Amino acid sequence: MNIILLSGGSGKRLWPLSNDIRSKQFIKMFKNANGEEESMVQRVYRQITEVDPSANVTIATGKKQVSTIKNQLGDKVNVCVEPDRRDTFPAICLAAAYLHDEKGVSADEAVVVCPVDPYVENSYFEALKELSDLAAAGGANLSLMGIEPTYPSEKYGYIIPENADKVSPVNTFKEKPDVATAEAYIAQGALWNGGVFAFKLGYLLNKAHELLDFENYYDLFKHYGEQKKISFDYAVVEQESAIQVLRYRGEWKDLGSWNTFTEAMDTEAIGKVTMDTTCVNTHVVNELDIPILCMGCKDMVVAAGVDGILIADKEQSSYIKPFVDAIEQPVMYAEKSWGSFTVLDVQQESMTIRVTLLPGHKLYYHSHEHRDEVWTIVSGQGRTIVDGMEQVVRPGDVVTMAAGCKHTVIADTELQIIEVQLGKDIDVNDKQKFEL
Amino acid sequence: MNIILLSGGSGKRLWPLSNDIRSKQFIKMFKNANGEEESMVQRVYRQITEVDPSANVTIATGKKQVSTIKNQLGDKVNVCVEPDRRDTFPAICLAAAYLHDEKGVSADEAVVVCPVDPYVENSYFEALKELSDLAAAGGANLSLMGIEPTYPSEKYGYIIPENADKVSPVNTFKEKPDVATAEAYIAQGALWNGGVFAFKLGYLLNKAHELLDFENYYDLFKHYGEQKKISFDYAVVEQESAIQVLRYRGEWKDLGSWNTFTEAMDTEAIGKVTMDTTCVNTHVVNELDIPILCMGCKDMVVAAGVDGILIADKEQSSYIKPFVDAIEQPVMYAEKSWGSFTVLDVQQESMTIRVTLLPGHKLYYHSHEHRDEVWTIVSGQGRTIVDGMEQVVRPGDVVTMAAGCKHTVIADTELQIIEVQLGKDIDVNDKQKFEL
Repeated sequence: MNIILLSGGSGKRLWPLSNDIRSKQFIKMFKNANGEEESMVQRVYRQITEVDPSANVTIATGKKQVSTIKNQLGDKVNVCVEPDRRDTFPAICLAAAYLHDEKGVSADEAVVVCPVDPYVENSYFEALKELSDLAAAGGANLSLMGIEPTYPSEKYGYIIPENADKVSPVNTFKEKPDVATAEAYIAQGALWNGGVFAFKLGYLLNKAHELLDFENYYDLFKHYGEQKKISFDYAVVEQESAIQVLRYRGEWKDLGSWNTFTEAMDTEAIGKVTMDTTCVNTHVVNELDIPILCMGCKDMVVAAGVDGILIADKEQSSYIKPFVDAIEQPVMYAEKSWGSFTVLDVQQESMTIRVTLLPGHKLYYHSHEHRDEVWTIVSGQGRTIVDGMEQVVRPGDVVTMAAGCKHTVIADTELQIIEVQLGKDIDVNDKQKFEL
Repeated sequence: MNIILLSGGSGKRLWPLSNDIRSKQFIKMFKNANGEEESMVQRVYRQITEVDPSANVTIATGKKQVSTIKNQLGDKVNVCVEPDRRDTFPAICLAAAYLHDEKGVSADEAVVVCPVDPYVENSYFEALKELSDLAAAGGANLSLMGIEPTYPSEKYGYIIPENADKVSPVNTFKEKPDVATAEAYIAQGALWNGGVFAFKLGYLLNKAHELLDFENYYDLFKHYGEQKKISFDYAVVEQESAIQVLRYRGEWKDLGSWNTFTEAMDTEAIGKVTMDTTCVNTHVVNELDIPILCMGCKDMVVAAGVDGILIADKEQSSYIKPFVDAIEQPVMYAEKSWGSFTVLDVQQESMTIRVTLLPGHKLYYHSHEHRDEVWTIVSGQGRTIVDGMEQVVRPGDVVTMAAGCKHTVIADTELQIIEVQLGKDIDVNDKQKFEL
């Protein structure tokens, strides 16, 4: 099966563990059968390969997520990077062109498009395989997944099928309704729209060429920012009459808020957490190094990370967004293609960070105009290049770089460096890159 | 007025903001009239001097608190340091001998002894002045403060006065009772024992020489560890018949638990804290650099510091002790006579700390057997001495010290240093001190 996973941003609804750089699908909130911590994207990838070991998995995403995806999944998946943010139709077209032109998937093969973060059982991915087979069989141009509703939700769109068969032509689509309307839809046999589509690759490429202006993947990538913002629903679903829906009955959750997120957690506490016996229905995710003690907490969610600490009544937590928008806090931790950094200390005229550089990786060769830097190697082995001079470095070695001096470091094994930045105007944008 | 403030440890009841090194009287939980944050000990000192600008204030305490007291009160108070932990009688005798032999207070002058942490109005300190005058007048050997009870508390001892006058001879003392007994005491006109005593200095010095073996302050200090552990109540109060009590009617709180502590807070939130409008009766003290967002918290206390994070129902928080005893967490922040240090990062074979050195102060001249160290000066000016070589240091300067090398640093202005420790066996006890 060819599957495109759409990996978008979850924004701030799961603050402080999700932010502009890290989305909820990367939070390690699960434990797999081996007791290892697992993120949503790792869980979904594992489930797909359990169901279809030869699945061809492509993650369509923005630039900011690439390094985290590589860190969590390695080279096991294709990553199709959107150079800009457009809407879902250009994103799916880019991934389709990528599969066709870069990965040699033929126009006749079926492709399934699915969100990266459904919280589901393996049967869901079995259903995706069926959907792929349906699309390949060509009974309709578009094949969707319809999830049997468990309650009259206002959060989802609805699909009204023509009949109650497992596979049925679609009669009509309905936008997110109020509860009473949802009840009426369900009485008519409506299904939740799970945001999953399957089609033959050629079908979508034709649509792409109709609506967008490009020749091939490379060309679309290059001119991606000039494409119109248009949703897949508007561009394709609403124009298409040959649509069928596959009925799926099984657990399916959208972990978009702390409330639903905690319902899916395998344990009540992740990280250094103590809860007394009077805590009830309380979930804690602690990514900090210091312990959290909870006493008498009822129906609460606690999430602590380098960006901040949330302590909320579970129901109340769904109103988080405006509060987080109002909090101004610099990014204290980021994963990068070369490793990660953590801000340890910020003073008036200095900042101290810990840099972890993965084996074989290096920083850009760069300089800073307004700050000096001091590197102390604390573990691993590598080489520094400072103004053209290469030097082997080991734990205890110190490298000082005055403002203006060009420098980089190459990790031969995983390197950890304490970097002290010094200057009156320390700014993340004060960086000039050079060729080595 | 001569006043001795007894400053003991508050242990772990206010974890994570109190620990073995820092007691509750040093937590900055108040705001003074100028909007400056104020600790209990700063508040009490301010109140005493508002009532009696010429008060002679001596704080009797253990070694661990000296640097914090100096940091918070400077040289405005005398500090009488107990070289070991004995009980209250030797501690009060040591402070009495200190006043007599070191500060020239005559045997005929009155001295008031008071806990360092009552949460009270200024009228309380007016009453202490009256108590001092009563003691000086010599109507009894011991003058105590009796607080008019506001409810039948089980937490306090009771004083039964002979009559209802403002000053009355004491009929008898009662240990902490149960509620029913407390009600009966109160019906008889009983007062809470506030732990305040006043006496003529000579009276106490006589008692001291009767029961302890010493010649003068210096001698008592030197042989303090050999003195018997005996409480002031047992040694003095229970043997004395000439005791009077001064009745005090006013707010008086013992902030020994998070519940009472938060009742006394001037604001609901200290530090980077956001609370939504659905929070009710919730208090937050955040000493961390990252923001805390509280939503829908009811009757809760949240306290966050470098040692950990407490999130507790207020009532439940009184059962904190066994949970804190079970948490193993190294000290991440400590105030010292020379300044303070904060642990920024702990890795397998390295530890990074920020050291702040107060102007004019220096570290011991010392070496480490099992670790190398790298200092990066990030602010201030000073001098380092490494294996006898003195060097002026400024921001950006780096000093490397291999294991075995003797080193120190002297602050000419306030110095901030990032210290990276490197080695397989980093241990706070790996330190040899030398004469310079």
